[in-house]
Amino acid sequence: MVKCITTIEQLHAELNQAYLDHKTIGLVPTMGALHQGHASLIQASSKENDITVVSVFVNPTQFGPNEDFDKYPRTLEADLKLAANNNATIVFAPDIDTLYPSKDPSYLEVLGNVSEVLCAKSRPIHFRGVCTIVAKLFNVVRPTRAYFGQKDAQQVLIIKRMVKDFFIPVELRVMPIIREQDGLALSSRNKYLTNEQRTQALVLSQSLKHVANRFAQGERNVKTLVSEARKIIEQSPIAKIDYVEILALDELEAIDTIENKALMALAVYFGSTRLIDNIILE
Amino acid sequence: MVKCITTIEQLHAELNQAYLDHKTIGLVPTMGALHQGHASLIQASSKENDITVVSVFVNPTQFGPNEDFDKYPRTLEADLKLAANNNATIVFAPDIDTLYPSKDPSYLEVLGNVSEVLCAKSRPIHFRGVCTIVAKLFNVVRPTRAYFGQKDAQQVLIIKRMVKDFFIPVELRVMPIIREQDGLALSSRNKYLTNEQRTQALVLSQSLKHVANRFAQGERNVKTLVSEARKIIEQSPIAKIDYVEILALDELEAIDTIENKALMALAVYFGSTRLIDNIILE
Repeated sequence: MVKCITTIEQLHAELNQAYLDHKTIGLVPTMGALHQGHASLIQASSKENDITVVSVFVNPTQFGPNEDFDKYPRTLEADLKLAANNNATIVFAPDIDTLYPSKDPSYLEVLGNVSEVLCAKSRPIHFRGVCTIVAKLFNVVRPTRAYFGQKDAQQVLIIKRMVKDFFIPVELRVMPIIREQDGLALSSRNKYLTNEQRTQALVLSQSLKHVANRFAQGERNVKTLVSEARKIIEQSPIAKIDYVEILALDELEAIDTIENKALMALAVYFGSTRLIDNIILE
Repeated sequence: MVKCITTIEQLHAELNQAYLDHKTIGLVPTMGALHQGHASLIQASSKENDITVVSVFVNPTQFGPNEDFDKYPRTLEADLKLAANNNATIVFAPDIDTLYPSKDPSYLEVLGNVSEVLCAKSRPIHFRGVCTIVAKLFNVVRPTRAYFGQKDAQQVLIIKRMVKDFFIPVELRVMPIIREQDGLALSSRNKYLTNEQRTQALVLSQSLKHVANRFAQGERNVKTLVSEARKIIEQSPIAKIDYVEILALDELEAIDTIENKALMALAVYFGSTRLIDNIILE
């Protein structure tokens, strides 16, 4: 059975012997509303570590003032079951005051191109909030390994840089995007979609698949690939594109031609729900 | 004999057994140009820990564009001797690229009143740079305890908040200001002073001593105490006051009357050399 812990004191009491014995600890940081994407991270962690801690915390500092912090799904009971079924040891579900103990906040921020493009344009404080909470969780849990989904491609790159720049003693493990049978990337925000939106949202994975095929056939021109992807997305009359871009890895510089590894990433609104998806071209 | 180490790999090779054996490690973060103030920190650390690491690194991100980064004294040979004489185990003296491995920087910043007042007004990026480098050093060295001088009173308060807000697993140890016989607080920047400036700079400790006496006699009015301190400092014709303030601990809020613990802090230029000093009133 998984243990649900809400305070740092309890967590450390639980982990103290593991620290002393140098047991391996896997951390899966989540905002809850766990789905099979999270399940794949928890499974990977429980295979690779003695102890797996799943954190469940809807982090206020990564939501903008007009974003969905209040309505973000909170499903702790179901999360505990999913965590248990995938062999997590501990679910750490603290409240906001526990992780933000001061009246004024402290922030950790990665600067540079990687944190200025893509999602950062429409969500300017998002990654600062992500880095801050992940850095806190790293210090609280002190994991050997931490598990993130490739679904949040830019987040992964920024956290990689944070770990590098701050010498955080953790191994990052990035797991593949998990998709529904029909191609839709799993996301806690899929719950917001109406049936109609859910059907139309398939243009996202279709556009990525198209670009992957064209890339495999040898197409390297970024404008061509992006324009073809946009056409597929625009076949949905309700899709409102935030961005569709192909950028060089790892710093996400703009490119005209794909020479080395590139990230194709997109963010598209269906109604008020903003979905992201991506594929690595290499 | 103290070992001088310049890379993180060497440092970890040296400390790895200590980590495995859960030995206690003390960190004394410095910018070099070590004096008896640093010596007191190193002594305290070597008494309280199995291993003492003294870092020597003139951190560029805490200097403003018109500050003394270039001319800041670098005296590694003498630093090694002082560290050895005070029973340090390791001097860690990396170069800039080692601690700033990315083209673009990442920062850790404590927000709120404590990082907006006093030195922050004339040195707006200073504490962001301090927090960033100290957070890096904490991750690199992973100390049990870290030693700071009360001389840098605001720095101490901000690092305390960083440790609290980010749950950094380290015990902070704050050691008293060390003074010359005549009262001047030790500082690596005292080397910049001419004989004349050195003599005149005594007004700083004299003003603090005066305020401490007046406080002991029962005076609690901030305006009165600050004005008396300023008068003493202004007895030096070359002293140019940056600030003389009394603020409430720990968040450094402005107060009219000292009710609980307060910090009296000052920063004064003698020529182009800016000296700081302080005293806690409680």
